[in-house]
Amino acid sequence: MSFLARLAIRSHRAIGRQTRRYSFTSSRNAAAPVDAGFGLRINADRLQESIHHTCQWGAAHRYGEDPTQTGMCRLALSDDDARARRWFEEETRKVGCGVKVDQMGNMFACRPGASVDRRPMTAMGSHLDTQPRGGRYDGILGVTAALEVLRTLHDNGYQTNFDVGAINWTNEEGARFPKSMLASGVWAGAIPLEDAWQLRDIFNPEATVRSELERIGYLGSMPCSSQAYPLGAHFELHIEQGPILESAGKKIGVVQGAQAYRWLTVNVQGRDTHTGTTPYATRKDPLLAAAKMIAASNAVGHSFEALVTTGVIKIPPTSSTNTVAAEVTFTLDIRHARDHVVEEVQAAVLERFGRIAAEDGRGVAFSWTLDSDSRAASFDAGCIAAVEDAARRLVGPDGWLPVTSGAGHDSVYASKQCPTTMIFVPCKDGMSHNPEEYCSPEDCAIGAQVLLEAVLGYDQLRLGLRR
Amino acid sequence: MSFLARLAIRSHRAIGRQTRRYSFTSSRNAAAPVDAGFGLRINADRLQESIHHTCQWGAAHRYGEDPTQTGMCRLALSDDDARARRWFEEETRKVGCGVKVDQMGNMFACRPGASVDRRPMTAMGSHLDTQPRGGRYDGILGVTAALEVLRTLHDNGYQTNFDVGAINWTNEEGARFPKSMLASGVWAGAIPLEDAWQLRDIFNPEATVRSELERIGYLGSMPCSSQAYPLGAHFELHIEQGPILESAGKKIGVVQGAQAYRWLTVNVQGRDTHTGTTPYATRKDPLLAAAKMIAASNAVGHSFEALVTTGVIKIPPTSSTNTVAAEVTFTLDIRHARDHVVEEVQAAVLERFGRIAAEDGRGVAFSWTLDSDSRAASFDAGCIAAVEDAARRLVGPDGWLPVTSGAGHDSVYASKQCPTTMIFVPCKDGMSHNPEEYCSPEDCAIGAQVLLEAVLGYDQLRLGLRR
Repeated sequence: MSFLARLAIRSHRAIGRQTRRYSFTSSRNAAAPVDAGFGLRINADRLQESIHHTCQWGAAHRYGEDPTQTGMCRLALSDDDARARRWFEEETRKVGCGVKVDQMGNMFACRPGASVDRRPMTAMGSHLDTQPRGGRYDGILGVTAALEVLRTLHDNGYQTNFDVGAINWTNEEGARFPKSMLASGVWAGAIPLEDAWQLRDIFNPEATVRSELERIGYLGSMPCSSQAYPLGAHFELHIEQGPILESAGKKIGVVQGAQAYRWLTVNVQGRDTHTGTTPYATRKDPLLAAAKMIAASNAVGHSFEALVTTGVIKIPPTSSTNTVAAEVTFTLDIRHARDHVVEEVQAAVLERFGRIAAEDGRGVAFSWTLDSDSRAASFDAGCIAAVEDAARRLVGPDGWLPVTSGAGHDSVYASKQCPTTMIFVPCKDGMSHNPEEYCSPEDCAIGAQVLLEAVLGYDQLRLGLRR
Repeated sequence: MSFLARLAIRSHRAIGRQTRRYSFTSSRNAAAPVDAGFGLRINADRLQESIHHTCQWGAAHRYGEDPTQTGMCRLALSDDDARARRWFEEETRKVGCGVKVDQMGNMFACRPGASVDRRPMTAMGSHLDTQPRGGRYDGILGVTAALEVLRTLHDNGYQTNFDVGAINWTNEEGARFPKSMLASGVWAGAIPLEDAWQLRDIFNPEATVRSELERIGYLGSMPCSSQAYPLGAHFELHIEQGPILESAGKKIGVVQGAQAYRWLTVNVQGRDTHTGTTPYATRKDPLLAAAKMIAASNAVGHSFEALVTTGVIKIPPTSSTNTVAAEVTFTLDIRHARDHVVEEVQAAVLERFGRIAAEDGRGVAFSWTLDSDSRAASFDAGCIAAVEDAARRLVGPDGWLPVTSGAGHDSVYASKQCPTTMIFVPCKDGMSHNPEEYCSPEDCAIGAQVLLEAVLGYDQLRLGLRR
């Protein structure tokens, strides 16, 4: 039974105000509008058009015949990213927003509210950059849905109490410039501006964040900080990127917080010698050691019920089949809901690495750096309540789940400086960071409608708050 | 006690004709010449000058202050390789050689012998190409020592019975065009010419062996085959590239044959998904599987007393720290003195790989190709005897060892078509395919003198042979 069919049945059961009939059609010849929170309804078709319109910039990795059946490669501060940015700026201005750009290229589009009490805006933020082999929803859904909410407010002449706006955060993926959630991290005061500016393109060391911001025209003059541009709240709609909602048959995840994670880079140093003439006993084989380390770190991960993954391994370009490599570099990504478990896993992994390094031949040396350390985050009760209210109305009491985010998001940094939460929608097979990443048009629309109603609910709530 | 000191002591013990005093000085103000086989003595200083002169073309990877303290990166058919080739051609012509180039760029420099019976030349062959992080001796010593032998014959007006010459074989390393001993393989009829011509530069697929031969002017018109250019014998002086001679305190290895080896490329296919949100149970992680495969293949190698090594591992350039890789490719190099053991190791390794592929999450797929299959080689008794005689005279009955080559060499293919053997000299720490690869001037000279005397001994022997 489809979700929409289930929703229809639920509506017939008519269990009071808490659950309303709600449906999105996939054609412009939509059925008559149905009752929705605050009398507003996002346009599901327009949202789809926006998503796929922006994907013309960076479309890659075709996997099917349909024009939308490609993945994305829109690296942060690339020419394609710049095109998507200009589109975002134009479209938000059309619906009455002022747009400001800070020194990290973060884009803040703000639609003024009614209140003379000019408190910081209630923001809907996400990112337009993608993984090199990414999909069409990670980040993109959040930004396009935020625009769809602003368009809906604009079309209906809806006046919020306080400013409401959309944010495009720079280099969330950390794929081109190797630090994820980079610019929200600077905004939150967690990453120094100079460090961020000096980060280099992993494939072209001549390009830095600063030089690329300048090149594409998005090096703003406004300081990048929560003092210079404070936020009243931060809501982010995002695909779950995991299988929990789909396998539980739920449509909305109300995100309570994010798990902690650390990224390490491990460098193993050996000696390049001939494979045919060098006995095992006299070798220093860093690739053998790295292979054992990767396997061991996975075993440690299982024993702590933590996720430990190696996504990248590199050897010098001078390596060859009949030469023991001189050195090997690989990454570790360690995740768990609790900070102290991440720390314990790291310690256990490094202890195992020390033993492995001495195991074969004449041994290898290794060193490591901690590249990212993202503490577990707890999101704001008021924001969570606003999303729960909206979810309960839209998909019923059984249609949503409280969840913890497995991935890092700009919302994690935002939550350090303002009330924050996230809204998850299911994605096919829980697949993300993959060209075939997919969220159905219905699920995108439900997510955007929850975003709209959560933001408006929070806008009401703020009347009774001081911030 | 140094080798020269030991040699001096041995000479004082005067144990008859078999052992003669023999020393090389490291300066031009050499002591008076000592008695040497056939009354000829190679010039140790000139040999050193030639080695390091040629290393101006491709010097790389400096590791010390001395001008000679660099490694080499002289890839086959590069501009630097072309410069070294022109030097080889000029220098061999100066000592009375005619030089022919075949369709694979192999260079045959031939100094005519006395006999009207124009049998094929007794050749001294090796290669001038290097690994991308190679040293100054692998291949280079063999070619420069061959030239030094020819110069010594020329300077002394020594008339051999049969033609004697030097060969520079193309792309021995297989580092740029991924098939080792490529052009000696074509000459021996083991590799089809068209296949060899079409091999592509591993980093620049637009460059093929044929296009690069043409570009640098070494696409000869003579067919590349042992019919078009037969050889009477093939001797090759080479550094051992392993630790056996050094640790045994021996100066010469008389090579009885070469171990068998196979090169495989293994491709493991998984699915790229987010590291933070994808539980272990739903992953298809090819890098984890590859890590386990590499560790397992090493364990299989130990159990068969065979050498199994992974020198290269590659992931797509789109990989990132927080994404499970989509696929991984790695190489396997399997070596043992016996062909059947290499086959058994391959079977055992692939069986283990099959089990590992199913072990984690939803499993991975893998495929493999056999890129090289070099059977064990047995060298020629007559050539071996000629080298043994020379070694016994020069370094005494305890100064040499019969050894098996761990590495592949052009001599392995040559041995399929003509009487062949090799002469090994020690290299520091057994290290090769490394910028710091080193063979002392004394050891180079002893090797070149053994080469000279073995070739002249074999030249005498041929009077009683039909070939």
